[in-house]
Amino acid sequence: MQLSDKIQAMQLSPIRKFVPYADAAAEAGKKVYKLNLGQPDIKTPKAFFDAVKNFDQEVLAYANSQGEKQLLVALQGYYKRIGLDFDLADLLITNGGSEAINMLMTAILNPGDEVIMAEPFYTNYKSFVGQAGGELVAIPTTAEDGYQYAVKEKIEGVITDKTRAIAIINPGNPTGKVLTRDEMKLIVDIAIKHDLYLICDEVYREFVYDGKKMDTFGSFKEAEQNVIIVDSVSKRFSACGARIGSIASKNKELMQNLMKLCQARLCCPTLDQVGAAALYELDPDYFTEIKAEYEHRRNVAVEALKTIDGIKYGVPEGAFYITCQLPVDNAEDFLVWMLTEFEYNGATCMFAPAGGFYGTKGVGQSDIRIAYVLNADDLKAAIECVREGIKAYNAR
Amino acid sequence: MQLSDKIQAMQLSPIRKFVPYADAAAEAGKKVYKLNLGQPDIKTPKAFFDAVKNFDQEVLAYANSQGEKQLLVALQGYYKRIGLDFDLADLLITNGGSEAINMLMTAILNPGDEVIMAEPFYTNYKSFVGQAGGELVAIPTTAEDGYQYAVKEKIEGVITDKTRAIAIINPGNPTGKVLTRDEMKLIVDIAIKHDLYLICDEVYREFVYDGKKMDTFGSFKEAEQNVIIVDSVSKRFSACGARIGSIASKNKELMQNLMKLCQARLCCPTLDQVGAAALYELDPDYFTEIKAEYEHRRNVAVEALKTIDGIKYGVPEGAFYITCQLPVDNAEDFLVWMLTEFEYNGATCMFAPAGGFYGTKGVGQSDIRIAYVLNADDLKAAIECVREGIKAYNAR
Repeated sequence: MQLSDKIQAMQLSPIRKFVPYADAAAEAGKKVYKLNLGQPDIKTPKAFFDAVKNFDQEVLAYANSQGEKQLLVALQGYYKRIGLDFDLADLLITNGGSEAINMLMTAILNPGDEVIMAEPFYTNYKSFVGQAGGELVAIPTTAEDGYQYAVKEKIEGVITDKTRAIAIINPGNPTGKVLTRDEMKLIVDIAIKHDLYLICDEVYREFVYDGKKMDTFGSFKEAEQNVIIVDSVSKRFSACGARIGSIASKNKELMQNLMKLCQARLCCPTLDQVGAAALYELDPDYFTEIKAEYEHRRNVAVEALKTIDGIKYGVPEGAFYITCQLPVDNAEDFLVWMLTEFEYNGATCMFAPAGGFYGTKGVGQSDIRIAYVLNADDLKAAIECVREGIKAYNAR
Repeated sequence: MQLSDKIQAMQLSPIRKFVPYADAAAEAGKKVYKLNLGQPDIKTPKAFFDAVKNFDQEVLAYANSQGEKQLLVALQGYYKRIGLDFDLADLLITNGGSEAINMLMTAILNPGDEVIMAEPFYTNYKSFVGQAGGELVAIPTTAEDGYQYAVKEKIEGVITDKTRAIAIINPGNPTGKVLTRDEMKLIVDIAIKHDLYLICDEVYREFVYDGKKMDTFGSFKEAEQNVIIVDSVSKRFSACGARIGSIASKNKELMQNLMKLCQARLCCPTLDQVGAAALYELDPDYFTEIKAEYEHRRNVAVEALKTIDGIKYGVPEGAFYITCQLPVDNAEDFLVWMLTEFEYNGATCMFAPAGGFYGTKGVGQSDIRIAYVLNADDLKAAIECVREGIKAYNAR
């Protein structure tokens, strides 16, 4: 019996596929620091659990396909506070940011169509583009050039008659790159000129460091037919398990077509929407403390990385990831060795080999992505573990 | 900017797209009986809410991509009680039965490939087949022939070199048709002979009436590489809003490939999985009362339908739907009229026009699907409302 070409072309997630090795290491008694997954250890706000516990309907019924009204209203209010005016009809609730991306690719791509994205990119974009029959076309960037992709020649150099969209994660995953207003404007102008959708994944919007401010692509009125904003409560409110994301766009034709996909899968989970509404109603002060905590962790991680000989990385300006080029031949082999053969102070470390975050063949084989989502002590210990692991691995 | 061919070919759900009319009728003060959606008014078992309320982790973390272990174990136990032995690796948790179907079509269909299904069919199958670039090929059945599709010539007559799967909902949605063991065996043999997947949607497994017993396709050992079982807590436990479905199959290559899709979308909601585990641990006695209640409603609905002149329908043997051919030209027009122009005892009725449940062009325009998910009194009043509506509509 046949497996489709598209599923055969997909890969297991480089972020998740080594979990069995980590589980085995943990069962063997090792502590395993997990820097592979963007799963913060920060507590989910109590408001979420309170809202869920106060749910008093006796039938857990289907929600509205577009999203529960109380969540749509709360999300609208959140956008208003950052200066964006959306009608409720401009918003859709999705099963995490993941479903938002999946639906968007389904809605805009015919077989062979292309989506442009800076590389290294969040690898699941490649999966969703591929599922829709399209191709992800990478703009190469490196730590040395500051992961800079907002360059006219770089972007226009990869636009073809098959290009349908530019997808941007800002702040960046896995690089932490944050675009300035001028850089955003440059991209906006290219999208308008070439009549492309601009898929703007801003799920890390609040996590921008060093006193910098970041704009949202939603603030470019001239591009409101191009811009599609993807959001999620996962990182913003440390509620990854709620699986509540969203799409916001003033492109009515697109939104009406996306409703077909929403209705086909019926709805997002009802209780989690009730909880997520409470999150989007939180006082914006909530982010002040969280941002300070991530900035601190960023600093701790960078200090720890400095002690590793031969490593290359760019200091992230936002989000909570660092892409690092390790002085090893192959990061996947090194990770498996770390999980199966190595320990340091009774512990080892799990990270995401970043080869799958690149579209350019052969690039990124020595790269890893680490997520600085653990508290400072664990983070430091985890990176020390990587440092000692590299020494032992290369001395074998 | 482009919308993809596949999204343009999709339709809004005929089950959900008239909701705005119903909302307007309700706002205008009419009572609207909702027979359109398979949304039971039966209480969700308290065990679900208790499990959710007892969740005591402070971080609502991502779940495992395959599914949370406690839910996988509970589902495995449920299958064991109905005589099926699945390893945990044979099971995947999905965002409702809907995501299960969506993933399966993505995994097995190349553009132009075909999936065979008896018509009338649950319309969202057509959406998911289309999203994957495939074609749903219908086996026509009618109330008069007892919605019989388990006929060698009927099935083999539509098999082509593009056919990849036969999809079966048993008990049937929207017909209530229940297959005998002999009918199942006939289909199983065809699937084996033609090397086809057999997608077995058994989400209404417990709802079979008149003292009949229904087997599961999982019990045919000879077809264990072909058979894929789709399940869901939505109808089984009146927990539609939990969005917890599953895929069970002993086809290891298929399951390993489906894991790519599971990992790309990260996971299903954590809390709902905790709740769903408690549902699958319920004593099987739970179904005795629920089944009796649905059987009673089926009887009430059929008695009420008998009072409508010129209607045609088959008496359902299971699930909770009846497809009816009404003595009106166009069921969509009639529904809009019912919601906007008509009332009877201060009420009107919402149902699903069933034209979208047919693949054969021009068939089913006068058909509706009603879901007998309301209590007997409301159900009777709702169908009386349809009866009086038809009289008034045809007398205009």
